[in-house]
Amino acid sequence: MDIKNLIEKGRNFLKSPWDTMGNELFSVEKTDQQKGIKQPLLEKQIEDENELIDLIRVEEFDLEKIDYVELLKKRRSRRAYKNKTMTLKELSFLLWSTQGVERVIRNGYATLRTVPSAGARHPFETYLYIRNVENIEMGIYRYSALKHKLIPVKKGNFDDEMFEATQEQRMTVTSAVTFVWAVVPYRTEWRYSFLSHKVIALDAGHVCQNLYLSAEVLGCGTCAIGSYSQEKLDKLLELDGDEEFSVYVAPVGKIK
Amino acid sequence: MDIKNLIEKGRNFLKSPWDTMGNELFSVEKTDQQKGIKQPLLEKQIEDENELIDLIRVEEFDLEKIDYVELLKKRRSRRAYKNKTMTLKELSFLLWSTQGVERVIRNGYATLRTVPSAGARHPFETYLYIRNVENIEMGIYRYSALKHKLIPVKKGNFDDEMFEATQEQRMTVTSAVTFVWAVVPYRTEWRYSFLSHKVIALDAGHVCQNLYLSAEVLGCGTCAIGSYSQEKLDKLLELDGDEEFSVYVAPVGKIK
Repeated sequence: MDIKNLIEKGRNFLKSPWDTMGNELFSVEKTDQQKGIKQPLLEKQIEDENELIDLIRVEEFDLEKIDYVELLKKRRSRRAYKNKTMTLKELSFLLWSTQGVERVIRNGYATLRTVPSAGARHPFETYLYIRNVENIEMGIYRYSALKHKLIPVKKGNFDDEMFEATQEQRMTVTSAVTFVWAVVPYRTEWRYSFLSHKVIALDAGHVCQNLYLSAEVLGCGTCAIGSYSQEKLDKLLELDGDEEFSVYVAPVGKIK
Repeated sequence: MDIKNLIEKGRNFLKSPWDTMGNELFSVEKTDQQKGIKQPLLEKQIEDENELIDLIRVEEFDLEKIDYVELLKKRRSRRAYKNKTMTLKELSFLLWSTQGVERVIRNGYATLRTVPSAGARHPFETYLYIRNVENIEMGIYRYSALKHKLIPVKKGNFDDEMFEATQEQRMTVTSAVTFVWAVVPYRTEWRYSFLSHKVIALDAGHVCQNLYLSAEVLGCGTCAIGSYSQEKLDKLLELDGDEEFSVYVAPVGKIK
């Protein structure tokens, strides 16, 4: 492996070509948005509306006020979870905290959420491997942020597949639920073309930080995982690995 | 420009090669950490300790308890700021929220902070363009997270340079302070080699999300900027553009 060359490429990826290549893109090449191409859906289509599972609405969260400085202070990556059931309200709160839609603006052009996203593109789909949540069968689910509902992908025990897909990190099979954020890159590319991918990674970081803080608020813990098998995880979630693929993983479990 | 090719490269950057190339790296090639090479400093060296500016300590923040759900609900990207002075306590709080060190662990091996970082490497340096903060002269500063103090880089009005470096986004010259996170990539590369750069971008997203939330707590607003001139911004901050370079920008100002 030419490690030096790989490192140089990696560093370059973190740099901003918005003034150099960006100016050429926007003035000469044009993005799909500039070309007037119809924008992609704000979230993946739901195949069967009858299968949707209701979540608890934000108005019903009724959390006590918190000491915000204490919250930041005690934030940690937590890998050991109690074998305790997570309530549906807790799961609803974590989902809303990380991707909750506050408003759809400009006639469906964009969503405003609990996290910022470059150009308000919000390119993520949230998948869950649910192991131990009140009244929810074990299995893989997707979150509809627009409807604040869960969509079953497939039910069953996928501990073996998840354990393998996350490089044998035990916390993904001892958690109550494991979040996997997948990206639909074209949502951002439609607006920003080849300038999209660094800002997508930044956006995924925003989302995960809210999961850290909201987990702590509930007496839960999480630990972000960047090291996973792309192929195995995408296969488990039934993603095509190109127009949609997993980017970040975070198991959550009770710690109190 | 071969846009299709650039997009493919961008997408690949977001994927995880930890099981394929990663296994080869850790077992055959070895990382600098595995080779026993001395780890880099946890933060940049301070040239003149006499110049350090004290910040308010976290014990003295005395914030009232907050409604966390309301906080997430009202999070927005805010581009219009009042022409009001930020207090030193407010700035201290924002700096601590985003990079504050809770503990140095294992004899200087790593820091635990208010945000997670892959392998606890925390590869960032926080630079500030201070325009309107109580008792602080206008200019460029760096934050020592280990000491929770400010280090002057250069004093003066750099509105023109900052305006140009951020692609003429007015908010960087109407803010009370603009945060610029620079990365020292070797801090993460020492441990993860060429696998570092996606997780560095995710880490920068964690940091910025805390700035969003903490700004709202103070009645301030921020708006993350991914679109800047690498060359101009690095020059303004006196970064070499290779071993240290800017990755993300966020102006902050009072909105109430």
